[in-house]
Amino acid sequence: MVNYPNGKKAADAVKTTNYGKRGMSLEDDINTSNRYYLESKKAVVYKKPTPIQVVTVDYKSRQTARITEAYYRTPSTTDYNGVYNGYPLDFEAKETHSRTSFVLKLIHPHQLSHLANVIEQKAIAFVIVRFTHFDQNFIVRASDMIAEVKSGKKSLPHSWFMEHGKLAPYKLFAPVDYLSVIEKMIQEGEFK
Amino acid sequence: MVNYPNGKKAADAVKTTNYGKRGMSLEDDINTSNRYYLESKKAVVYKKPTPIQVVTVDYKSRQTARITEAYYRTPSTTDYNGVYNGYPLDFEAKETHSRTSFVLKLIHPHQLSHLANVIEQKAIAFVIVRFTHFDQNFIVRASDMIAEVKSGKKSLPHSWFMEHGKLAPYKLFAPVDYLSVIEKMIQEGEFK
Repeated sequence: MVNYPNGKKAADAVKTTNYGKRGMSLEDDINTSNRYYLESKKAVVYKKPTPIQVVTVDYKSRQTARITEAYYRTPSTTDYNGVYNGYPLDFEAKETHSRTSFVLKLIHPHQLSHLANVIEQKAIAFVIVRFTHFDQNFIVRASDMIAEVKSGKKSLPHSWFMEHGKLAPYKLFAPVDYLSVIEKMIQEGEFK
Repeated sequence: MVNYPNGKKAADAVKTTNYGKRGMSLEDDINTSNRYYLESKKAVVYKKPTPIQVVTVDYKSRQTARITEAYYRTPSTTDYNGVYNGYPLDFEAKETHSRTSFVLKLIHPHQLSHLANVIEQKAIAFVIVRFTHFDQNFIVRASDMIAEVKSGKKSLPHSWFMEHGKLAPYKLFAPVDYLSVIEKMIQEGEFK
């Protein structure tokens, strides 16, 4: 690792540009952004609940049904979808701690096939990839990422995102302001 | 109640027209229809999982995480959404056992406000109402139903659905073929 003359590590220097949002997960930041979009009437986007198979429920009282045995199920879809100005939105969000590349297996097969399905139905389908070390949130068209997976790639270097992705700006009420990027991409015909 | 000369009740006579699908819930029938739409590449629509607040998880082994304490949470949205040919779909489904009317409080406040929000974003928003006794599945625009709630109505008579709703046809692979109705309503400009 390259150290700066003052003894600080390079990564720390980069990290100081993160506007105090250190420690918030990508999911938290997207949920905050979605709340802002909802309240400002820009878009209606929600994270889907994790599917859980409930086996046993203890009904002590009507209000307080307590689940005492349940299991996580594999989801069939991506984590997020919604609607923006007549456009159906569908996306997945992933973070990587690597400084060099994004391992494609982080996007699971069911997520890839769901993205392919919604692209066929003309949804605005994309992936948000956070490189935590650089505090960068890239917006990438799902079709571009699917093409790389199909070509047999196992990972994509950071430079691929610099070339094919667009950085979501940080805003106070929308820490990952993906919608401003998507809005522009739609206007420029990037989703056909 | 009016009885037929053979002693059979009128409702029983109506019930015999139900094509053998008696006993399947509206949710089951919609899920079956959605699977058909997905496989035939007509639309991508899923029921959202019920949101559950997980409190305690028992990790005996990596594969078999067992949830031992959890609680149901109130959802923020409708149960179903997805995408059809570039259109964002969003809907709720309700059944009533009444022969005369549909009680509007069956559609909860969070569902009504979510429907209003997605209408503002130009989604194709609707409600599927099943009158179980007549085996009828009505498709109603969410905006029409919201207008009735706002006007202070507490319930809507069956005749309201005959006038304002459209019947979803029964098909072998799509027991509640709402998409064929929505397709036509879009073509006829019923969603502006």
